[in-house]
Amino acid sequence: MRIITLLSDFGLEDGYVAAMKGVIAGIAPEARPVDVTHLVPPQDVAFGRFRLLTVAPFFPPGTVHLAVVDPGVGTARRALAVRSASGSLFVGPDNGVLGGALEADPPVAAVELGEARFWRNPSPSATFHGRDVFAPVAAHLARGMALESFGPAIPLDALVRLDLPAWEPMPSGARGVIQAVDRFGNLISNMPAAVLENRGAWRASIGWRTIDGHRTYGDVPPGEPLALAGSHGFVEVAVHCGDARQTLGVQVGERIQLGWAAPTAAGSPSPTSGS
Amino acid sequence: MRIITLLSDFGLEDGYVAAMKGVIAGIAPEARPVDVTHLVPPQDVAFGRFRLLTVAPFFPPGTVHLAVVDPGVGTARRALAVRSASGSLFVGPDNGVLGGALEADPPVAAVELGEARFWRNPSPSATFHGRDVFAPVAAHLARGMALESFGPAIPLDALVRLDLPAWEPMPSGARGVIQAVDRFGNLISNMPAAVLENRGAWRASIGWRTIDGHRTYGDVPPGEPLALAGSHGFVEVAVHCGDARQTLGVQVGERIQLGWAAPTAAGSPSPTSGS
Amino acid sequence: MRIITLLSDFGLEDGYVAAMKGVIAGIAPEARPVDVTHLVPPQDVAFGRFRLLTVAPFFPPGTVHLAVVDPGVGTARRALAVRSASGSLFVGPDNGVLGGALEADPPVAAVELGEARFWRNPSPSATFHGRDVFAPVAAHLARGMALESFGPAIPLDALVRLDLPAWEPMPSGARGVIQAVDRFGNLISNMPAAVLENRGAWRASIGWRTIDGHRTYGDVPPGEPLALAGSHGFVEVAVHCGDARQTLGVQVGERIQLGWAAPTAAGSPSPTSGS
Repeated sequence: MRIITLLSDFGLEDGYVAAMKGVIAGIAPEARPVDVTHLVPPQDVAFGRFRLLTVAPFFPPGTVHLAVVDPGVGTARRALAVRSASGSLFVGPDNGVLGGALEADPPVAAVELGEARFWRNPSPSATFHGRDVFAPVAAHLARGMALESFGPAIPLDALVRLDLPAWEPMPSGARGVIQAVDRFGNLISNMPAAVLENRGAWRASIGWRTIDGHRTYGDVPPGEPLALAGSHGFVEVAVHCGDARQTLGVQVGERIQLGWAAPTAAGSPSPTSGS
Repeated sequence: MRIITLLSDFGLEDGYVAAMKGVIAGIAPEARPVDVTHLVPPQDVAFGRFRLLTVAPFFPPGTVHLAVVDPGVGTARRALAVRSASGSLFVGPDNGVLGGALEADPPVAAVELGEARFWRNPSPSATFHGRDVFAPVAAHLARGMALESFGPAIPLDALVRLDLPAWEPMPSGARGVIQAVDRFGNLISNMPAAVLENRGAWRASIGWRTIDGHRTYGDVPPGEPLALAGSHGFVEVAVHCGDARQTLGVQVGERIQLGWAAPTAAGSPSPTSGS
Repeated sequence: MRIITLLSDFGLEDGYVAAMKGVIAGIAPEARPVDVTHLVPPQDVAFGRFRLLTVAPFFPPGTVHLAVVDPGVGTARRALAVRSASGSLFVGPDNGVLGGALEADPPVAAVELGEARFWRNPSPSATFHGRDVFAPVAAHLARGMALESFGPAIPLDALVRLDLPAWEPMPSGARGVIQAVDRFGNLISNMPAAVLENRGAWRASIGWRTIDGHRTYGDVPPGEPLALAGSHGFVEVAVHCGDARQTLGVQVGERIQLGWAAPTAAGSPSPTSGS
């Protein structure tokens, strides 16, 4: 009995997600669907990519992750299934939505979904591959069918990666950008929290503000901003019992810079370009 | 182990849906609940009817579909359970919310929920039959109890149908109305996509616009409108990577007309009044 | 196979809830998660408390209820697990979010979550105990591990209770406050519906309005207000096919007074202070 996680921009007011679950239930009645989110803003691949990367590591090995944010549905964009180093499986369009999760848990094999006999029918809807292509493939994978059954192999370095801003170390600091804002208005940067290890006191500069580093929200009074090592593993900026997005007037893409007392050491995390 | 789908106007911020799932778990621990949507606008039976009809065909035969959009709760309106030709089961108020799904998968037997011993208690809340009447009945059905146990039979032609606008064929075209708008702002008409078969080039007129027919969103540039055969099986109007509701200023009920080169043939789909 | 209900202020657009479910699946693959709501307004402990109390009684005994509305995460606030008289289990921060459910189903044992070996790791995130502390504990409880394993016992009278307004009986009536407003705009008071038993005709005064008591929404024309015994077991004020919050301009905390013909009898429900 495997888990199939579902992530999409299908929203919750229509029946799109339920149609996918119906198709899954027909093929793999024992598989258990778990929603990641369906509130990805329409066609926002980067939003979906971030949510998947923050969730996938917490599921058991062998989980099938189905991610459908697919502005190119029905065109020549590839449809993918990928097996990762941990033995998990990823299914979705080849547009970068899977790429964040696959940075932490690298791909070991990928195929293009070309075998129409595993689809819901050989002439899928031109606009809803989630239901007609991706969900059936995810269900067959959850039943244990081999990845290689679904179509021809793709070289791993040919997978599409989003062109996202990188972070970089600086003398006694680092700089990057806000890569996501969550429900609470927390501003999540692209700098790994590991850059803060053994730094002593530190602070973050964002917009017009310089904000002290702390351990948790309750370390400052309600309404006050703080910077911290967030639960996703990235440096973030928050307001205790408040909304940093509103308080600071900041959006995804805003620059953020960190500074600390102890100099940047050899052996600290390497910058990576987003993908 | 059967699936029970749940559709309602209960929203997601309160515990109404969870209370139904708790009642179901107490009666049929093995049944698996799957949400269709709970964001039906309060009391909007037609909205619920459309979502159910787009989802029910994708679930395995034998699924129990529970749909509670029930402005008449606690009054003399009937409560129903219905078995369809495919062997699926439908539970809800007799107000038309089930009618769309039952057009595609016709009813073969229907009963009025009169047997109070299958309710959560013999004196149900006057305002929450979803929890106290419908959920327990759905759970007993999922366990395999016979439909006839729940109350007296109702003639199938006595089931309440919504009085919805019909579509109709025209010389070299067809006309109908927008029956639903989805999360993406796609405008979904009541004309079956099958009317487009073998028509060659076609276009749709809606509001002040005439829009060319295409196969999928990516066939036009981002921001451009198109008409297409939608994934629900109806002709729809969309904007690639955009929102046709906003771009065209159109609501549910708006008239839409199709035109094509090839004349309307004998044997094409018959118009049906909505129900 | 036990149920784990989940309630939080984590919202539905991020992956916080899914991360908790992934952790649960890794520890207790057979446990079945059921969402109560994740749309508790950020840090609104009273909102979460009310939703949990309206839902918990409808789940089978032995259910594990996980409620994470936790403005004090990472500070000295206690983390709890509680066993109730019915044999259900409750997990969450010690800030009153569990207190409403525990009024109806009193606690029989409580422990502080001090045993880090049951957490996801011994150094949990300072900001996401839902994933790193509460979810793992709920999963171990669902597998049948004894409550006493998780940490030292806490005296039951030491559990934190919210300081909420009480209701009180009056000559030929009662008075209280609105404790919650639901999706439909129904105004739910803190007065138990049992106060209405054997009262004959009654009415409610709220804001500038006096509103007659009825049995169900359909007893008044659409758009008209009514007072009634609501499905949660409290007296409430609604508008048939409308929104009483908007129509009456009322918020949580508004005073409401009931009046009836029959005098208040000995043996009627006792007022209780909220907790």
